[in-house]
Order: sequence, then structure tokens, then C-alpha cells
Amino acid sequence: MTARLIDGKAISADIRGEVKEAAERLRAKGIVPGLATVLVGNDPASAKYVSMKRKKCAEVGIESFHHELPHEATQEQVLELVTRLGADPAVHGILVQLPLPKQIDEPTILNAVPLAKDVDGFHPLNIGALAMKGRDPAFVPCTPNGFIELLDRSGTEISGANAVVLGRSNIVGMPVALLLVGRNATVTICHSRTQNLPEVTARADILIAAIGRAHFVTSDMVKPGATVIDGGTNVIDDASRKSGKRLVGDVDFGAVQEIAGAITPVPGGVGPMTIAMLLQNTVRSAARDAG
Amino acid sequence: MTARLIDGKAISADIRGEVKEAAERLRAKGIVPGLATVLVGNDPASAKYVSMKRKKCAEVGIESFHHELPHEATQEQVLELVTRLGADPAVHGILVQLPLPKQIDEPTILNAVPLAKDVDGFHPLNIGALAMKGRDPAFVPCTPNGFIELLDRSGTEISGANAVVLGRSNIVGMPVALLLVGRNATVTICHSRTQNLPEVTARADILIAAIGRAHFVTSDMVKPGATVIDGGTNVIDDASRKSGKRLVGDVDFGAVQEIAGAITPVPGGVGPMTIAMLLQNTVRSAARDAG
Repeated sequence: MTARLIDGKAISADIRGEVKEAAERLRAKGIVPGLATVLVGNDPASAKYVSMKRKKCAEVGIESFHHELPHEATQEQVLELVTRLGADPAVHGILVQLPLPKQIDEPTILNAVPLAKDVDGFHPLNIGALAMKGRDPAFVPCTPNGFIELLDRSGTEISGANAVVLGRSNIVGMPVALLLVGRNATVTICHSRTQNLPEVTARADILIAAIGRAHFVTSDMVKPGATVIDGGTNVIDDASRKSGKRLVGDVDFGAVQEIAGAITPVPGGVGPMTIAMLLQNTVRSAARDAG
Repeated sequence: MTARLIDGKAISADIRGEVKEAAERLRAKGIVPGLATVLVGNDPASAKYVSMKRKKCAEVGIESFHHELPHEATQEQVLELVTRLGADPAVHGILVQLPLPKQIDEPTILNAVPLAKDVDGFHPLNIGALAMKGRDPAFVPCTPNGFIELLDRSGTEISGANAVVLGRSNIVGMPVALLLVGRNATVTICHSRTQNLPEVTARADILIAAIGRAHFVTSDMVKPGATVIDGGTNVIDDASRKSGKRLVGDVDFGAVQEIAGAITPVPGGVGPMTIAMLLQNTVRSAARDAG
């Protein structure tokens, strides 16, 4: 049996549609949702991400304010820019594109984003609230939130499920684990030091792969019928492509789709979700700001 | 084979000895470590905890400043007191004894404790830092930190171990799970909605019980040779005692000690550790304040 595809393109389009409607309701009240994007340096991949985010903003009715600083920018310059955007009432969300150049301390910059505009959801206060009962984060981090939407909108039952999260990064693995605990899954957090990993992953009703290793999850590591969310975005060589390269996930898709019950493809799975959730957070921020 | 006892009394006494030496070094420099305790209302158990903490403070050379407010105190009164203590340079740590009376919003009060004096480690910023790589919490929450000390000082290898945490509370289960992930254990977080719980716990090399249900963990739930940390402090009826009551853990100690490799008793396991870690955090705060 071949796994059902969880279509991130279609699901993210639905979410962008909802966001667009919410933005229109705000505009009707005279509020224009605004996202500031900050790009430091000239990394082409980062520039492409930012430009894609701005394009999607325009499509849903979010105004974007783009700011670029040179690769040699000082920490003070970045800090000053972020502080200024933090005080700008037209800006409801601030996106600092990561990674930042080496001379800049990432935590210092991210801490300078006011909590109310932290649409990326990376602030430690947000992560703390995510880990705690009775606290609501100001914003849920976009990529992990996208994973949860994919599970929910593909009809995967989270409560009571055995969820295994492969990877414990600040921006994907750990927050998605915390979200899954909050949704009453039994959650196992695995990483490079995990022993007998295939045994652990093969018990997962929900398997989240977020380790950044191409084709790492093989079919023997997957429980028959499991829902597999592939959070990997790895570029590998592919001579058959004009570019000589190809984007693949952390999951050996071809083999795993024969075992799993449902699976996200790469591309077209988690990728488009991150931006959709960023747009959702921005419009929510504008709505909150409007009271 | 009977499990080795992990002696929380002896280990906590070692830690208090270390804290006393650190306090003496500070006093020699003219710095007196100070802990403010805040008790709202007249709950006898809370009063007893606070008085025990103050007694232990005195033993290790920490000055304690006790403040009581009546059960009917308003939120403003508690907030004003905590704010005043936050600004007092003689106070290096503030302990607000929980639970607070119903009219008082606990998160509001705890958020008012300055991060630099949050020796309980309950602030969401602290919890967020605990969950994130590359961030150091100002203080590690006392009870979970005590569990880790019990593991370390009893020679239990954490890195690579399968650790199962039963319970996901803000003050015990979740932070201990985050600490264990940080120490490279593979961590499974279980709770009331976990399916087939005995199967899950029986895979644990390290089993942490923190659910508040007397004798819940039975011998069939424990892997032979596992290290079991019993975080339960449940009062049950016991006609053979003069008080008619007895303190027991979440673990069926009598049966589980025949299976486990090492186990903490109740009382005398995790109990004395919490205060020891509170004292440690307070003296560390004073040392940090002194530069």
C-alpha cells in the first residue's frame, strides 16, 4: 500500500486564503498588517527566502518593509535597526533572516525583537510559554506550527499518539516536541546520541524528521501506517537536473511511502507551510494590536 | 537482587556543605547571601516548608528575610511586596511559596520576580532557555535540578540513556525532561493520555516518576536494572502511625526495589534535594551579583 500524500502546497494555500480574508477584514477597519524583513549580508539563499516571503505577503494583503544591511554591518547597526522597527507602529511583525554574519550575536539580536512583534516565535519567553501549562506563547514558531497544521488538516489524531521527534533544534525539533506534548501526544525526543534509533522510530505513530540529513529515515525505521512529516530540506547532487542539484528531505521517500500511512513530500510538504504560518502570525499580531 | 538506594539525605548534605563553603567565601568578601521568603495565607504545609527552608538557610550562612501576608491579601499587595524585594540589594533570591490564594494570579506574581532573583527558576524565560541550545537559564528549577544531581552523584550515565519522564508539570516533569535532553538522553514524556504506559516505562534506563499518584509505578512497569527517581510526595492513610498518615512516593517502592538497579526512597530521596538546590541557587545569585 502506498501512503497518502499530505499536500503542503494545498494546505498552505488554504491557510493563506484564510489569512487573506483576515487581512481584508483588518484593512476594512483601516489597519494594514505590516511585516518588516531584515536581511544582513548577501547570502543568495537568504535573499531568495526573504523575497519569497515578501511576495507571499503582497498576495495576502500584508505590507512588507524590507531592510538590508551589508555583510560587514556591526552588531550595533543591526540592533539599532531592529529597535527602530520595534517602535514603528506600522510594523506588526519583524523577521530577521537567519543566519546572521559571524560578527553578530544572534541571541542578542533576537532578544531585541519585541515579544509582540516576534512573529517567528523564536524568543525564549515564547519557547518557555510553549513548554508551560497555563501560558500562551505570543506566537507559535512558524515551522513547528506548520507541522502541527499538516497533522491536523490531514486528519492525523495527535492526542494519545506515540510521536517521535528526530532532532532537537531550537527552531524545529524542540518546539514541535513541546507542541505535541501540549496536544497530549506521548513524545520521544531523539538525536545524534540516541541508541538503537530504528527501534525507537519504528514505534512512532507520528514520526517527525528534522535532522538535516538526506534520506536518513529508511523504511525499516517506520511503523506501518505511521504519519511521517519530513522536515528536511537537503540539497544533494543530481546530474539529471539542469542545476546539477536537487532538494530532498530527511526521509527516503520512495521506500518509506510504501510503509507509511501518510507522508509529506519534499518539496511540497513542510516548505510552503512555514511562510503560511508567518503570514498568519503577522495578521494575528496586527489584529491583536488593533484590540 | 535489591536495588541500590540513592540516598537523597546524604547527597543533599554534601551539596549543603558545598553551599556553606561558598557562602563563607562570599561573607569573607563582605557579601551576605540573602533569600526573601513570601508566604501568603496560613496553609500549614506551606508554612512548614517555608520555615524548613529558612532553617536550612541559617545552617549554610544564608540570611533569610521572611514576609507574610494574610490569606485575603490582594494581588496588588503581593505584587508590591515582590517588587520591593526585587529592588532590595540585600535580597539575592525571592521565594514565593506556592500555591497562592485563589484571588491572586500566580503567573503575574512569578513574572514580577526579577530574573536575576528567580532562584526557583520558574520564570518562562528560564524555562525557555532550558529548552534551547546555546542559552543558559539564570537558574535551573530546584526540584528538577535535584533529580539530575541524584543521577550524577549516584553514578548514573545520562548521555545516551533512554529516559522516561512520567508527568509534564511546569515545575517538575517538563523541566526535568528538558534537562535530560540537554544532557543527551533520549527522552520520552508520558502523561495521563499515554497509551500502553507500562510498555513505555519498561523501556526506561532512567525512570522519573512525577505524577502525584501514590504507588502508581508497579514492578511490571520497570526495566530490570533501571535507575528510578521517585518524585512523588503523596500523603496516604496509615493507621499504624500516630499521625494516622504516611508519606509515600509515586513508586511502589517495596516491589520496584526488587527490579530496579538504583532507586530513591520516599522520604529521604528527592525531598531534601529541592531545598539544597534552592540554597545553591541563592548563593550563586549572590556570587553573580558580586561579579
